[in-house]
Amino acid sequence: MTPRVKDILENLNIEAPFNLAEPWDNVGLLVGNPEQEVTAVLAGLDPTNKLVDEAIARGANTIVTHHPVIFKPLSAINTAEPAGRLLEKALSNRIAIIGCHTNFDSASGGVSDYLALQLGLGNLRPLQYTDDNQSTDTGLGRLGIFPEPLSSGDFLTRVLNTLQLPAVQMAGNLPEKITTVAVCGGSGSDLATVAFARGAEVYLSAEIKHSTAIWAVENNFCIIDGTHYATEKPAVTLLVKKLSETIDKKGWKIQILQTKEECHPFVLLDRTHQL
Amino acid sequence: MTPRVKDILENLNIEAPFNLAEPWDNVGLLVGNPEQEVTAVLAGLDPTNKLVDEAIARGANTIVTHHPVIFKPLSAINTAEPAGRLLEKALSNRIAIIGCHTNFDSASGGVSDYLALQLGLGNLRPLQYTDDNQSTDTGLGRLGIFPEPLSSGDFLTRVLNTLQLPAVQMAGNLPEKITTVAVCGGSGSDLATVAFARGAEVYLSAEIKHSTAIWAVENNFCIIDGTHYATEKPAVTLLVKKLSETIDKKGWKIQILQTKEECHPFVLLDRTHQL
Amino acid sequence: MTPRVKDILENLNIEAPFNLAEPWDNVGLLVGNPEQEVTAVLAGLDPTNKLVDEAIARGANTIVTHHPVIFKPLSAINTAEPAGRLLEKALSNRIAIIGCHTNFDSASGGVSDYLALQLGLGNLRPLQYTDDNQSTDTGLGRLGIFPEPLSSGDFLTRVLNTLQLPAVQMAGNLPEKITTVAVCGGSGSDLATVAFARGAEVYLSAEIKHSTAIWAVENNFCIIDGTHYATEKPAVTLLVKKLSETIDKKGWKIQILQTKEECHPFVLLDRTHQL
Amino acid sequence: MTPRVKDILENLNIEAPFNLAEPWDNVGLLVGNPEQEVTAVLAGLDPTNKLVDEAIARGANTIVTHHPVIFKPLSAINTAEPAGRLLEKALSNRIAIIGCHTNFDSASGGVSDYLALQLGLGNLRPLQYTDDNQSTDTGLGRLGIFPEPLSSGDFLTRVLNTLQLPAVQMAGNLPEKITTVAVCGGSGSDLATVAFARGAEVYLSAEIKHSTAIWAVENNFCIIDGTHYATEKPAVTLLVKKLSETIDKKGWKIQILQTKEECHPFVLLDRTHQL
Amino acid sequence: MTPRVKDILENLNIEAPFNLAEPWDNVGLLVGNPEQEVTAVLAGLDPTNKLVDEAIARGANTIVTHHPVIFKPLSAINTAEPAGRLLEKALSNRIAIIGCHTNFDSASGGVSDYLALQLGLGNLRPLQYTDDNQSTDTGLGRLGIFPEPLSSGDFLTRVLNTLQLPAVQMAGNLPEKITTVAVCGGSGSDLATVAFARGAEVYLSAEIKHSTAIWAVENNFCIIDGTHYATEKPAVTLLVKKLSETIDKKGWKIQILQTKEECHPFVLLDRTHQL
Amino acid sequence: MTPRVKDILENLNIEAPFNLAEPWDNVGLLVGNPEQEVTAVLAGLDPTNKLVDEAIARGANTIVTHHPVIFKPLSAINTAEPAGRLLEKALSNRIAIIGCHTNFDSASGGVSDYLALQLGLGNLRPLQYTDDNQSTDTGLGRLGIFPEPLSSGDFLTRVLNTLQLPAVQMAGNLPEKITTVAVCGGSGSDLATVAFARGAEVYLSAEIKHSTAIWAVENNFCIIDGTHYATEKPAVTLLVKKLSETIDKKGWKIQILQTKEECHPFVLLDRTHQL
Repeated sequence: MTPRVKDILENLNIEAPFNLAEPWDNVGLLVGNPEQEVTAVLAGLDPTNKLVDEAIARGANTIVTHHPVIFKPLSAINTAEPAGRLLEKALSNRIAIIGCHTNFDSASGGVSDYLALQLGLGNLRPLQYTDDNQSTDTGLGRLGIFPEPLSSGDFLTRVLNTLQLPAVQMAGNLPEKITTVAVCGGSGSDLATVAFARGAEVYLSAEIKHSTAIWAVENNFCIIDGTHYATEKPAVTLLVKKLSETIDKKGWKIQILQTKEECHPFVLLDRTHQL
Repeated sequence: MTPRVKDILENLNIEAPFNLAEPWDNVGLLVGNPEQEVTAVLAGLDPTNKLVDEAIARGANTIVTHHPVIFKPLSAINTAEPAGRLLEKALSNRIAIIGCHTNFDSASGGVSDYLALQLGLGNLRPLQYTDDNQSTDTGLGRLGIFPEPLSSGDFLTRVLNTLQLPAVQMAGNLPEKITTVAVCGGSGSDLATVAFARGAEVYLSAEIKHSTAIWAVENNFCIIDGTHYATEKPAVTLLVKKLSETIDKKGWKIQILQTKEECHPFVLLDRTHQL
Repeated sequence: MTPRVKDILENLNIEAPFNLAEPWDNVGLLVGNPEQEVTAVLAGLDPTNKLVDEAIARGANTIVTHHPVIFKPLSAINTAEPAGRLLEKALSNRIAIIGCHTNFDSASGGVSDYLALQLGLGNLRPLQYTDDNQSTDTGLGRLGIFPEPLSSGDFLTRVLNTLQLPAVQMAGNLPEKITTVAVCGGSGSDLATVAFARGAEVYLSAEIKHSTAIWAVENNFCIIDGTHYATEKPAVTLLVKKLSETIDKKGWKIQILQTKEECHPFVLLDRTHQL
Repeated sequence: MTPRVKDILENLNIEAPFNLAEPWDNVGLLVGNPEQEVTAVLAGLDPTNKLVDEAIARGANTIVTHHPVIFKPLSAINTAEPAGRLLEKALSNRIAIIGCHTNFDSASGGVSDYLALQLGLGNLRPLQYTDDNQSTDTGLGRLGIFPEPLSSGDFLTRVLNTLQLPAVQMAGNLPEKITTVAVCGGSGSDLATVAFARGAEVYLSAEIKHSTAIWAVENNFCIIDGTHYATEKPAVTLLVKKLSETIDKKGWKIQILQTKEECHPFVLLDRTHQL
Repeated sequence: MTPRVKDILENLNIEAPFNLAEPWDNVGLLVGNPEQEVTAVLAGLDPTNKLVDEAIARGANTIVTHHPVIFKPLSAINTAEPAGRLLEKALSNRIAIIGCHTNFDSASGGVSDYLALQLGLGNLRPLQYTDDNQSTDTGLGRLGIFPEPLSSGDFLTRVLNTLQLPAVQMAGNLPEKITTVAVCGGSGSDLATVAFARGAEVYLSAEIKHSTAIWAVENNFCIIDGTHYATEKPAVTLLVKKLSETIDKKGWKIQILQTKEECHPFVLLDRTHQL
Repeated sequence: MTPRVKDILENLNIEAPFNLAEPWDNVGLLVGNPEQEVTAVLAGLDPTNKLVDEAIARGANTIVTHHPVIFKPLSAINTAEPAGRLLEKALSNRIAIIGCHTNFDSASGGVSDYLALQLGLGNLRPLQYTDDNQSTDTGLGRLGIFPEPLSSGDFLTRVLNTLQLPAVQMAGNLPEKITTVAVCGGSGSDLATVAFARGAEVYLSAEIKHSTAIWAVENNFCIIDGTHYATEKPAVTLLVKKLSETIDKKGWKIQILQTKEECHPFVLLDRTHQL
C-alpha cells in the first residue's frame, strides 16, 4: 500500500500530537491535498524555496518542516516574492507541506528532549509543563541532570559538538562543575526565569535577549545562546528517524529523506574575513 | 507595449481607488505576480473554479472579481476543497487574481451608481458618504430620483428588467407613485434605516434580513430584495467597459473579457418543479 | 386559580429552558410585571404594533414572541417611532411581553425539531450540539432522515407545503433521491458548512448569504432558502399547543391564542405585478 | 404658538450642548415623543417616581432631569420594580423625560459654574478643559478666586449656606486664609489631583473616596465633601431660570416649574436620633 | 527563634488566604525582603508616611496594612511626592510592608465578619459568596440577624458606638424594628442591591453613591453610610489580635503593635466651626 | 549654581525629547527627587547593581541609562532579588535614575545616528520616520551611504572596529562592494524588511530572529547581528559628550562620568575555552 498525505499526518500526530501546539501556532497540513499518494517525504527545519527545489530534485512530494510555511495567515499570495513563489512552486508541483512546530517542541521525545539526550542529560522533565500539569511528560524545554558532574571545559566541548558550532555566546558565569541543566531548542529567552527558579545551573537555548542576559549577570546565572538553528537541527534527524521506523513497521514503500541542502542561516565572521 | 499586472492594478486604482475599501475588506492583487505580462483579462463577480477554468479556456491570465478570492486570511491551503483547488489551479497556470470589492462599491461610477443608472435614476448621491463627508461623490449605495414619477407597475417592470429576474421579494407597501429611490448593490440590509431617513420611497438592495423586513412593515416603508447576484451583476459589465476604454486609450493589445459562464447561484423553484 | 405572568414564564422555562439561549440573546420577561394576573396569552413570531393591537382586541394581557421585543439594549424610548410606540402601547395597556428566542431554537422539541417533523424527517439529532455535548438532544438546527428516500419532486412539494410558500430559492443541485436533510429554522447561513460536513444531502434554512450559495455551488451541495418567516412560523403553532396542554393540566382558566393577523413580511412579485 | 418637546430640546442644546456629554453618558430625549406639544416643564435632579407623580399633579408633560432616566441601556422593563414602574407611569401618562447630565456639567454657565458663583468665586475657568483645549470655557469643574481672601470660618459658613447643609465632611487641613478654590458639583473624587496641581487651596466636590481623602492628608491638601445632591441642587434652579428666560423671549405660554418634592436622599443622624 | 517576614506572610495566609483577593487587587509582600528577621509588626489601615514614621519610632521593621501600598503598578518612584517618599523611607529603613486587602475582606473571620460581630449580629453568612459557592463561609460583606429585634433608636446607638462616630448618613427609611442586617466594611455601594435582594432590612457600608441612595429611597430600603475608615477600623484590632495569638502559640518573641497615630481622614464640620 | 535633577532632565529633553519615546516605553525620571541637587552624573547602558555601586563609589548621585530601570510597571519591590535590591540601594543612597530609551533611539543625533557616523556613513536619514513624517530627521534606525563604495573586507573590518567585537553573525550574502547601509542600534529584527525595501545593501542591527535570517537568505539580502550591547554602547559615549558640553556652557560645576565597570553581557566561547 502507498500511504497518503493523511496517513503521514496520522503518524506525526502520534509522535507529536498536533493539539500540543501553542494557541498562536499553525501546524498540520498547511499546503496540499490530504488524499494525495506520497512518493517520498523530505524533512527540514525551514520551508524555503531551496527546500522545495530539493524535494522536486529528489522526487519527494511531501515536505515536513519544523517552522510552519504559513504562520501569519495570508491575505495575499504575491509570487514576485520568495514566500509567494514557494507556494506557487509547491502547488504547481503538487507538493504537500506539513508543519510540526510547537507540538514537536512540547512532545515527549520532541525537540528539547532530543537536544538534552544529545548532551548526555538524564532524568528529563519538561521545563514548563503543558497546562501546568506536572504529572505529564509534555511541555516546552527540558530539565535534566548529568550522571556525574561535568567540568566547565568538558561541558562546553560537549555543547559545541552537539550544536556543531565553532563558538557560542554566554551570559553570566559558567560554574566549575555542572550537574543540572535546562535546555530549550529555539527561541527560549522567556523561559530563562523558569530555568533559574527550577534550579538549573546552566540554561542552553537561543535568541536570548539583551535584557535576559543582563538579568542573568545580575543573578549570577549562566545562559548559553546556541542559536535557533543549531539547537533545533538535531530534531530533524529525530523526526526522520521516527517517521522511518513507522514506515518500516507498516511496510510502506516510501523513503523519509533528511535535507542535505539546508544550512545555518548565520555565519560567524571574525577579522580573518572567512566568508 | 504589453501591460503587466501592475498596470491593470494602476488603472483599476483610478476607476475604483483601493483605499476606498472598508477596513475589514481585502482588495488589490490577491494572487499572482505584479510583474507578469497580461495576455487577457477576464472579469466576473465571484472567484470560482468555473471562472478560472473559463480564463484558461479563453487565454486570459488575469482575473478581476468583485468578491475577493481571499477574504478571511488563509491559515492553510487544502487542495482537496474547492477553495484550495482554485488557488492551486490559478498558481499552476500563472493566473493573477485581483479583487475590487468595497472600493468598487463606494467609487464614483461604481456598483450602486451603475445599478441606479440602469433603473433610470438621476441626480445621484451616495447613500452613506465615505467618512461622512457629504461633499464627496463616493460612498456606499446611491440615492436618486426619477425625472418623472413612475407608477408602481412601471417601476416593478423596470426593476425586474434591470435585474433580469422573474420575480423579487418585497417588504412593506409599494407606493402608487415613485420618485425617490435608494439602491445598494449586494448585501445592504443595514443601510435600510439610512435609506428611510434620507427620504427614499423605495429601497432596492439584497440579503434583507427578516428583522429589517419587519421594521419596514412597521414603518410603512418599502424594501425590495433583488438578490445579491442580480444587483451586482450589472457592475461587471461596467467594469469591463471601463477597463476596455482605458486599454484602447493606451493602445494596449489585450482583450478585456466578461464571463459567459457565471450564473445566478440561486434559482427560484415553484410547484411546477422547473429545475 | 388564575396564573400570573411568572407562572407562564415557569412553564415556558420547562419547554424551552431560558439558559439555552445564546450569550448574545435576550429572552424571558422583557416588558411588564411578573406578578400580574394573566387574562389570556397571545403567541406570535414578531413583536409588532399589530400584534399588540391584536392582544388588546382579543383581551390578552400577555404576549409571547419568538423574536425578542428588546434585542439591542435600549438607550432611549422614542414614541414617535414604531418601536417606542409599541412599548408605550404595551405599558399603557399593562400588557406583558415575553421572548422565547434561541432557547426555543435549541430546545428539544423546539423550532427546528418541529420544522423537521413537519417535513416527515425522523431520527432527529441537533445539527450543532449545545456546548459540543453530543449526548444531549438540545442544539441549533436538526439533522434527520426520511424513512424512505424521496424523489426531488416529492421533496420539493413537501417543502413548499410545509412552508406554505409558492416558491423557494435554491443554490446548488437538488439530488434525484433525498434521504438525509438538515434544517435550521430562521437565519442559518453559518451552519451550512456543518450541514455539509455532517452528511446532509440538502440543507433547508433561511437568510442564506450569497457567499454561502456560491460555496454550495462550488461544493456541489444543495441549500434551500425557505425564508426566515416560513421556516419559523410552524414553531408558533407548536408553542401554542404546548402552553395549552400545560394550562389544561393545571386547570387554569385562561386561553392560549395564536395570532391571526401576523403575515409574511415579504411577498413575491413577478411580472404579473400581483401586489 | 405652543412649543413641542423638540423645541425644548433645541433650547437646552444652546444652554448645554448635548455634544459636550462624556462618551459614556446618555443625554437628550430619553423617553417620549419629540413632536408632542408641551403643557409645562418640570425640572429636578433625579428621575424618580415621586418626580413623575409631581409632574402629573402639576400638569407638566415634560420633565428635565440632571441624572438620565436611562443610563445603563435597558434589556428589560420590569414594572414590578421602581425603575420599570417609572417608565410605565411616564409612558402611560404621555410624559416626556429629557436628560441634561455631563453636557450641563461641562457647559459654560453649567453646574459647577453656578456652584462657584453661589460661593462668590470670580475669574472662573474650567478645572479640566474639554479635550484639553485651554482656550475654551467648557469643561468639568471650575477653578476660581475670591475677590479678597476669606478666613476659614467665613469660608465654611459660606459653603454650608450655599449647600444648605448642617455639616460637611472635610479631609486635610483648612488653610487659615482662602483665596483659590476648585469646585466640581457631583462625583468629583478623581479630579482632586487636578485641583491640587492647578493650585487650588481647597477643593469642594462630592463622593470623595477614602483613598482620595488619605492622599489629601498626605499632601496636606484640603478637600470638602459637600454631598452629590447639595453640590448639584443649585444647578436645577439655574436650569429653570435659563429655560424660563427663553420661554419668555419666544412668547411661549408654558410654565417652567422647579420640583418642590425632591429632597436630599441622605439625612445626617447623630446620637439625638433625630430621624 | 526569630520569625522572618516570610513567616508572618505564612501566618497571614492562614487567617486571610491571599488567593481570596479580587483579581484586580494587589496583596502580599509589596515592599521588602522576605528573608529579613522581624523586630516587631505594626498594623494599620492605610500605608502613610505617618505610619512608617510610627514604625520607626516604635522599632517595628514590618508593617501590615489593609490598603495596599502599591495598588496601581508603579512606572516611577518620585520621592518629591508623599507616595515616593514613603517607599524611600521604608526601603532606607529596611521596613517591609505587607498588604491584606480584599483577601481579608472575604476571609472567614475577616473585615465584615468582625464589623457584624461588633454590632451584635449572629448567624453570619457572606453577603456575596466567593465564586457563587454558597457552601463556603468566605465572600464579601456579611448578612446576619439580631437575637432579638432592635428598635431603630437602639440600633442607631449601637451603630454609632461601634463606628465611634458622632453621626452617620442614612438613605431611605429606618424600620421601627430591625432584625436582619447586611454589612460591608469599606466601599460597598455596588452590593446594596444584593443586600436588598437577600432580605436585609438595613445595609451598613460606606462610599454609598448618590445613585444608590436614590435607588434605596425609591425601593423604600434603608442604607447607612458609616464611612470607609470607621467601618474598616475594627478589622485592624482583629488583625492584631489574630497575629498576636499566633505569635504566642509559636513562642516567637516579637510584638504585634496596633497603630496609635492613625485617625479618620474626614472630620465632620458644622456651623460651630469646630476644626 | 548647582544644577538639580530637573535641570538634567530639561537638558536631556533637548538632546533626546522624551515625547519621541514609543508608546510602550517608560522614560524620564524613574527613581528619585527632581528637586535634588546633582553631585555628578554617571551614564551607562543598563541599570544594574554594579552601576549603582559605581555611582556611589565615584560620588555621582544621578544616573542616566539607556534601558529604563522600571520597564514593566512594578507591583512589588522584593529586595531579596537584584531588581528590588537595586531600588533599595538607589533610594537609600538618594541616587536618582533617569531613562533615555527609545526617545534617544529616535532623536536626531541619537543612538543609530552615532552608530552610523562611527561607521563612516553620510547623508543619514531615519530608517523608519517618526509618525511616517518624512520631512523630519527623527525616527528609529538610520539609512546612510559611504562617500565611496567599500569592499566587503574593508566594511567588515570597520564594523568589527566600531563594535569592538572579535566576530559578528551574518545572514545572507555580503555584497562585494557596499555603498548603502541601514543600521539600528539594539533590537532591530522587525525593521529588516524596511531596510530591504528602502534599498539598503546591508542591515546592521541586533537580536535578529532566526525567521528574519531565513527571510534574508531567501531574499538574498544581508543582515549583520552586531549584538545589542555593542551596537548601543557608542551611544553612551555620545550621551556623555552632549551632557558635558551643556554643563560647560552653563558653567555648572559637576562632572558627567561614563561607566568604566559596564561590560558586554555576552562573551564568545570557542573550543579553546577561553572564559
